[in-house]
Amino acid sequence: MPDNSFGIALIGAGRVASNLGTAFKLRGFELQCVLSRNEERGRLLAEELGTHFFRLNEAEQVRAHLFVIAVSDDAVQEVSEQLPAGEAVVVHTSGTRPMADLSKHPNRGVFYPLQTLTSAVRHQWSDVPFCLEASCHDALAVLKDVCTQLGAQHYELNSDQRARLHVAAVIANNFTNHLWGWSRRLLEEAEVDPAILHPLMRETLAKALTHDPYGVQTGPAVRGDEQTLRKHLAQLEEHPRLRAIYQLLTESIAAQSNGKL
Amino acid sequence: MPDNSFGIALIGAGRVASNLGTAFKLRGFELQCVLSRNEERGRLLAEELGTHFFRLNEAEQVRAHLFVIAVSDDAVQEVSEQLPAGEAVVVHTSGTRPMADLSKHPNRGVFYPLQTLTSAVRHQWSDVPFCLEASCHDALAVLKDVCTQLGAQHYELNSDQRARLHVAAVIANNFTNHLWGWSRRLLEEAEVDPAILHPLMRETLAKALTHDPYGVQTGPAVRGDEQTLRKHLAQLEEHPRLRAIYQLLTESIAAQSNGKL
Repeated sequence: MPDNSFGIALIGAGRVASNLGTAFKLRGFELQCVLSRNEERGRLLAEELGTHFFRLNEAEQVRAHLFVIAVSDDAVQEVSEQLPAGEAVVVHTSGTRPMADLSKHPNRGVFYPLQTLTSAVRHQWSDVPFCLEASCHDALAVLKDVCTQLGAQHYELNSDQRARLHVAAVIANNFTNHLWGWSRRLLEEAEVDPAILHPLMRETLAKALTHDPYGVQTGPAVRGDEQTLRKHLAQLEEHPRLRAIYQLLTESIAAQSNGKL
Repeated sequence: MPDNSFGIALIGAGRVASNLGTAFKLRGFELQCVLSRNEERGRLLAEELGTHFFRLNEAEQVRAHLFVIAVSDDAVQEVSEQLPAGEAVVVHTSGTRPMADLSKHPNRGVFYPLQTLTSAVRHQWSDVPFCLEASCHDALAVLKDVCTQLGAQHYELNSDQRARLHVAAVIANNFTNHLWGWSRRLLEEAEVDPAILHPLMRETLAKALTHDPYGVQTGPAVRGDEQTLRKHLAQLEEHPRLRAIYQLLTESIAAQSNGKL
């Protein structure tokens, strides 16, 4: 058995908290308690994890080696103020909040899982890269150790790098997913089985994982195929919002391929 | 051995022609000849495929059961006029051109491979859905048979459906690839290893293949997280084009999640 004997206090009861809490428990960490502003969800999660529940205003009573704040971005700073001052390592799991939000705690850090976590519990953590940042070497060592126990990769990024990564992740996940939603909708309108696009989507990803995407860009925008571009824009007249997206992305692809991005 | 004894004439010498020609040959079809406007590339491809070369103005001499036009979209109609009139099935491989471009030929059709084909030759055709259209039952039967021999799936779509599919494919492939290029560039600028995004990209695709993407949309736009959106826009000030894309896609996601798309 690995040495997971140090105690973890989990703050939050949402998707990230329940995913992490379950993983901590399964990997044999000592889960001291769940703290939450939402008493109902907090008690439920504590029960599921077989541990104690505390309200946030009872946080001073809690003793743990590691406090993991998994609450909404806006609440990170406020919640961290309520945790007991001391030597414990206090981390948040936010992609956007700076480590400075935890300035009350000398041993502070960031433990940000870069993955789209669903409410269903994840059992595979090898596909979750954790972005780590820490105020001191000991705190960093604790976070690295937790990653190792979870079987997850880790990357050391400062708060600026993480903020930049967060924008890149929105582009790489939220935006591409939305575009796939649009393409599915166009096919549904034309009564074409959306599954016809799946092999193309798979190949697009496979290429982007092995090449710089700019280097394997194809399509009418990169070819400067004005006739096809005009036809496509005409087809999108009933969807003005998508038409505007089409136009802007086409210009961006053309600029990129002409070295003018 | 399957009955591939009918002869195919291939018109073109680019990516699609060389990929299809190689596949035809490997699957035991009788490849009668390569015809091409570009004599140098045409001769080279004919040689690679172990068959004869003809110039387009010599097309009247060619006898084949199936003529496969794999030239640029703009040239389809003109090229089809130069092929000998007769009972042979004549198809083009374009996503955008209507079947009517081939009106000289009574047995006409469309044989459009919906995949991003690279210049390197593809050996796996099970991940290439072919969109078929034909002027008569016999021509359709020939095209279905060729798909079966290639091990490829096929879908029957009319010219309007195929035109709509072509727009959807540009969105699903060209646009997502370009966005991944942007996200990679942002990470390179921040000196973060672009591979950190790969697990997220994989998961994004995995979800989009098993769900309606609109149903699994996440991120600040769908949450209405104004603080994060403002921060992201501020970070993109040095990239006005990407900033505009960010704004437009964010509005589109918000509209979609509010049922106002």
